[in-house]
Amino acid sequence: MAHHKMLLCALFAVFLAFGSLSSTVQASDPELTSDFFVPEGKVAADLDGAFFTNTTLENVQPNLNSAFATVTPVNQNVFPALTGLGISSALIQFPPGTVNPPHTHPRGTELLYVIEGILSVGLVDTTQKLFTQTLLPGDLFVFPKGLVHFQINLDQWKSVKAVVGFSSSNPGLISLPSTLFGKSMISSEVLQKSFNVTADVIDKLKAAQV
Amino acid sequence: MAHHKMLLCALFAVFLAFGSLSSTVQASDPELTSDFFVPEGKVAADLDGAFFTNTTLENVQPNLNSAFATVTPVNQNVFPALTGLGISSALIQFPPGTVNPPHTHPRGTELLYVIEGILSVGLVDTTQKLFTQTLLPGDLFVFPKGLVHFQINLDQWKSVKAVVGFSSSNPGLISLPSTLFGKSMISSEVLQKSFNVTADVIDKLKAAQV
Amino acid sequence: MAHHKMLLCALFAVFLAFGSLSSTVQASDPELTSDFFVPEGKVAADLDGAFFTNTTLENVQPNLNSAFATVTPVNQNVFPALTGLGISSALIQFPPGTVNPPHTHPRGTELLYVIEGILSVGLVDTTQKLFTQTLLPGDLFVFPKGLVHFQINLDQWKSVKAVVGFSSSNPGLISLPSTLFGKSMISSEVLQKSFNVTADVIDKLKAAQV
Amino acid sequence: MAHHKMLLCALFAVFLAFGSLSSTVQASDPELTSDFFVPEGKVAADLDGAFFTNTTLENVQPNLNSAFATVTPVNQNVFPALTGLGISSALIQFPPGTVNPPHTHPRGTELLYVIEGILSVGLVDTTQKLFTQTLLPGDLFVFPKGLVHFQINLDQWKSVKAVVGFSSSNPGLISLPSTLFGKSMISSEVLQKSFNVTADVIDKLKAAQV
Amino acid sequence: MAHHKMLLCALFAVFLAFGSLSSTVQASDPELTSDFFVPEGKVAADLDGAFFTNTTLENVQPNLNSAFATVTPVNQNVFPALTGLGISSALIQFPPGTVNPPHTHPRGTELLYVIEGILSVGLVDTTQKLFTQTLLPGDLFVFPKGLVHFQINLDQWKSVKAVVGFSSSNPGLISLPSTLFGKSMISSEVLQKSFNVTADVIDKLKAAQV
Amino acid sequence: MAHHKMLLCALFAVFLAFGSLSSTVQASDPELTSDFFVPEGKVAADLDGAFFTNTTLENVQPNLNSAFATVTPVNQNVFPALTGLGISSALIQFPPGTVNPPHTHPRGTELLYVIEGILSVGLVDTTQKLFTQTLLPGDLFVFPKGLVHFQINLDQWKSVKAVVGFSSSNPGLISLPSTLFGKSMISSEVLQKSFNVTADVIDKLKAAQV
Repeated sequence: MAHHKMLLCALFAVFLAFGSLSSTVQASDPELTSDFFVPEGKVAADLDGAFFTNTTLENVQPNLNSAFATVTPVNQNVFPALTGLGISSALIQFPPGTVNPPHTHPRGTELLYVIEGILSVGLVDTTQKLFTQTLLPGDLFVFPKGLVHFQINLDQWKSVKAVVGFSSSNPGLISLPSTLFGKSMISSEVLQKSFNVTADVIDKLKAAQV
Repeated sequence: MAHHKMLLCALFAVFLAFGSLSSTVQASDPELTSDFFVPEGKVAADLDGAFFTNTTLENVQPNLNSAFATVTPVNQNVFPALTGLGISSALIQFPPGTVNPPHTHPRGTELLYVIEGILSVGLVDTTQKLFTQTLLPGDLFVFPKGLVHFQINLDQWKSVKAVVGFSSSNPGLISLPSTLFGKSMISSEVLQKSFNVTADVIDKLKAAQV
Repeated sequence: MAHHKMLLCALFAVFLAFGSLSSTVQASDPELTSDFFVPEGKVAADLDGAFFTNTTLENVQPNLNSAFATVTPVNQNVFPALTGLGISSALIQFPPGTVNPPHTHPRGTELLYVIEGILSVGLVDTTQKLFTQTLLPGDLFVFPKGLVHFQINLDQWKSVKAVVGFSSSNPGLISLPSTLFGKSMISSEVLQKSFNVTADVIDKLKAAQV
Repeated sequence: MAHHKMLLCALFAVFLAFGSLSSTVQASDPELTSDFFVPEGKVAADLDGAFFTNTTLENVQPNLNSAFATVTPVNQNVFPALTGLGISSALIQFPPGTVNPPHTHPRGTELLYVIEGILSVGLVDTTQKLFTQTLLPGDLFVFPKGLVHFQINLDQWKSVKAVVGFSSSNPGLISLPSTLFGKSMISSEVLQKSFNVTADVIDKLKAAQV
Repeated sequence: MAHHKMLLCALFAVFLAFGSLSSTVQASDPELTSDFFVPEGKVAADLDGAFFTNTTLENVQPNLNSAFATVTPVNQNVFPALTGLGISSALIQFPPGTVNPPHTHPRGTELLYVIEGILSVGLVDTTQKLFTQTLLPGDLFVFPKGLVHFQINLDQWKSVKAVVGFSSSNPGLISLPSTLFGKSMISSEVLQKSFNVTADVIDKLKAAQV
Repeated sequence: MAHHKMLLCALFAVFLAFGSLSSTVQASDPELTSDFFVPEGKVAADLDGAFFTNTTLENVQPNLNSAFATVTPVNQNVFPALTGLGISSALIQFPPGTVNPPHTHPRGTELLYVIEGILSVGLVDTTQKLFTQTLLPGDLFVFPKGLVHFQINLDQWKSVKAVVGFSSSNPGLISLPSTLFGKSMISSEVLQKSFNVTADVIDKLKAAQV
């Protein structure tokens, strides 16, 4: 009896999964099938040049009281015209001595252009080989999709300014210090075993993320 | 006069087709532009670990009264978290002597892993070359996208259990016996000519699909 | 004080951009994850063979009073079943002496098949090399994605008829004469400098587009 | 001892798999990153308009002694310029009474255009629903990627001619009668169980494929 | 007799096209399947930080004797590390009064960032609607894939400097004045009919391209 | 003089970048354009069922002397038939108390199936929200592309065995403890600033990675 029920249950699962194949349709093409994205509730006729413009970066000031660089992303969340076009940007400002801590972008490659200053960069591939470089104004450096990388302004007096392009309209950002030891609150047991250290080391790392 | 109307008609079609290029916009990227899919009517904050979990396969029982293997797919229709991630799964249970009849997956490659038992598999490429193999527990076999394949448990006493991954969140399944001779009810004329047999052979094939 | 405000402003922008990464989700796969697109407001059960059929081209008549070929596109805007399938079509009719002016398709390659007549075609690559060919009935010619191309019927008495396939369900069409000098109304200053000619030449070009 | 060996073996497998991640590199982009494909051993300067032209279909004659339609594909194998452009073509000629038997294209959608004659078509989706249509000259019909479909010329006197576009430069063709019962030589045991018929039915089907 | 030959010929074409489906294989994934591209003849171990760095833009000087902006692209042709990563860049320098003439990028969207100066930009969609904007330093403007666009520095005294990102490692550039009237040498007959002007206008346009 | 040289230099760069657009061609389609990948130096006729089979996982033994789970990947590097098919696999064995430390896969989503035992898993999204779940045998859990995740066997006596599918034929693995503090040897200065801790904490983390 219970057996019959289970059989029915399994068959129902099959029905649910296969039977609805063509009713839960979604239209999606490998590429955008229009000139550009038109926000919901609007039509193309409503749009003008301002739609393709984003002024976020005009007057961004770096945080001078932080050990970290100031990163100002401009992706489809703040610039809807980018939707579906496979590209976005960010401005990174490095006051003297600041670092952009090790991080990854889960959905995009980053191509960095140095506007002013001298910037030290690092990239680690999946074989854990570290690639480093000192960049001058005008230099480009590419951080391939998903790989761990960081940048640091080693100069104690001069600022660095860089603008980056991403190969996605929303590449995402995973800052590793806070993702591992900060607000995500991964359990100490997991972290101790994973990093092969005692509880007090993990405690210090957790306390250090604000 | 009729000629004028046709011209107008044609011009109207042109207008319809080209004039609306940017008003029927759809946003779509070659890849997901968010961490994961959030079901309509929900926001990310509503979700917890259960959203990324599917328990369908915990207690699936095979149909012991069938000549066919029991296939339990877990795709985006029953596991919405898979949406946009390009992967899904299925459990295939083969009671002794059962077959998973020749079929294709129109939208995905299948990678099969044998959990227990000995499984015979077959794959036919577009040159109609047949590739067969006898798989042991722990073996992997890949069925490239869209190609005809089948599996059979030739043992009369022992069951086989396999779990598969697909390269699409909804690969689809085209079972060839029922698609050709079953509920689709393709006309006998088409089938006789196509398979080069007389009506009675087609009748037997049709009667045999339940 | 103003400085503080700016900092807050910048931080807010960061919050907006990164904080909402997983709440502005969109489901999209590199490929369609269903058998076909079902129009909004319908379910698969509502559809029949007519949904997969388009009769636009049955009786299209060419415009005999124009110097231009008559192009009748059949894309997802007029044939919704094409949505998400990466293909569409168009019929091009060339009364004697007509031209299909230089144009591009921003989102697709074009593969042209000559049904009747003799057609002269031209294609310019990004190194500005011109490729020309005279096509006979039954010939195929491919215009790679985004490149400038044109076709002309040099015969003064016979018509040409061609059907084309595109590698997108909505490739778009940019006719260069009208885009540059017609209804877009690009300023004369930009055009004079760009084409290195005097105002009267630009005026003639603008006046000639109707 | 054997245990140690196995451990070493497993570790070696891990090394092989992860250690070589960046040495077995392959360059591939979601899209072509050049204007067009240049065949190995040539440079762009060697090419002229003939490279973008294919004349295979100029004089193709249908096989009048067959019950099957004559299909002449023009894909990247015979027309290298199509490589990487996501489109190809085929001419299908239907002498009176001929059929293009049930088949799938594993890698592409087909968009069919009727040049002359009246053509009956059928399409079966993954829920095994059959869609049929009678097409007139000028009609378009779309067969979504990977789905089973067929065409038949029901007229006893008139021929049908159709040209099709595919959404891949090499969509592949799986003719189901011969793939299932012909030269692939799938074992009778698998076929009997799969189609739920006796050996004599399978024997007749096998004997009928030439 | 001739008929037999033709039949053989057609069958041979079919054989060529279908018979070789799996022998002319090419490995390509929708995405890069390695951390990054390693140039032929090298292995990953040969590479260091310099491989991911490009210094082309460090000291680029604009052409002060031209009416056109100076565009310096940095794509996979000069920066091989970009291969397969779907992104590239260019620096555009506008001496006072210079224009970047109407052009398209056949394989990529462009996201422009103004480093210094005030820049006027224009974008024309496929409905021939013109979008214009005046950009300040720090502003971003997006030109969707394949659409016609231009930029002009209307200031008579100050220069403008912009850096752009493309959504392709090799987007291509089609400058419309020279593609239409310059070194491609499209025949006057085609151009007169297409632009609806007399031979002398075309002659002036052709003479003006250098 | 120097100015002239620089101009020439810039023009040469432009020539290099744009002039070679169509000579450095590469053929690549968004999808595989053959039934499957044939290794260099072989032809399809050389291949049999063994080519589509991988036996690596038949007898893999877990490392019982490690605090870490034993991960045995089966990707295109060890199983060439997967090339271009967008899928691969791995077996993960968790002796009692072992952890699979926080890591990412830069090029793929992971779908995990528990074969035996009870497994605790964690996933952190880009907003640093942690999702955890306790999985039973038969359960599936999806880790979206590029996101940080980990698994731990909290049982002190029983082992856990899981098989996973990836949405790439070579997803890559970035183990965060060793990438940050191990053999990559990122400078202490960068790590101290990034993790906001003193040198002794970093020293302990570095010493702990073997």
